[in-house]
Amino acid sequence: MKHLEDCVLDHIAVATADIESSVKLYEALGINFEDKREIVESQQVKTAFGAIDENAHIELLEPISSEGAIAKFLDTKGGGIHHLCFRVKDVEKKQKELEASGMKLIYEKPFIGAGNCLVNFIHPKSMNGVLVEISQKLEEKK
Amino acid sequence: MKHLEDCVLDHIAVATADIESSVKLYEALGINFEDKREIVESQQVKTAFGAIDENAHIELLEPISSEGAIAKFLDTKGGGIHHLCFRVKDVEKKQKELEASGMKLIYEKPFIGAGNCLVNFIHPKSMNGVLVEISQKLEEKK
Repeated sequence: MKHLEDCVLDHIAVATADIESSVKLYEALGINFEDKREIVESQQVKTAFGAIDENAHIELLEPISSEGAIAKFLDTKGGGIHHLCFRVKDVEKKQKELEASGMKLIYEKPFIGAGNCLVNFIHPKSMNGVLVEISQKLEEKK
Repeated sequence: MKHLEDCVLDHIAVATADIESSVKLYEALGINFEDKREIVESQQVKTAFGAIDENAHIELLEPISSEGAIAKFLDTKGGGIHHLCFRVKDVEKKQKELEASGMKLIYEKPFIGAGNCLVNFIHPKSMNGVLVEISQKLEEKK
């Protein structure tokens, strides 16, 4: 079975109250983590990335304040998988196609997320309970 | 960042009350699904597979009775991501390493799961809330 070029797994986002503890657990499993930790101010999280395939990664997310979606997720559900992100070629086009098929996107328009990507989220109610991010890698400016 | 050869994503398992509805949603997103549906009697589920990378797939799981872990998961949490599965070279060796580092496996020994794989599960309490399957592909008998 071949995957389609227009929808490939980019990352699995995991919410954790203690990012260094989670990095150690996934490293014990055999996953290679970057040493770098990145703060995403807009989401109020610290992130760590681990490689799980040629292109895909685990993204660990620890809140840096009580604000933001990840802090709320941890408060209500505890640590666990927060969302899946798929890379698409054209996120605006994909959004229009999904909306035409009756699915709800969380933001009216795609916006610039981490790593110079244009992203939006499909509402979990439109994905039978799974929060899905769609992400388009923007060209680097020369 | 390069992934290690001994721990590569195999699948993301998603529990759903309606497998055909979920297949349609993931197909709308751009994921290629097999037409085949497989019944796994031991788990009391029907499965469908969609390709999300060169090697990894989404595994949709719908209960075929009120028995089994997936029916219970749906009852308590509703539809959503149930577990992640990583392929390892030697699941018994990996189990011993993980147990030596203090992690709890759900089954005392690996057992034969779907697709002629030897599998076990790491308890979510040992993975900060994420249920993780480890799976070793067995050689086909000639």
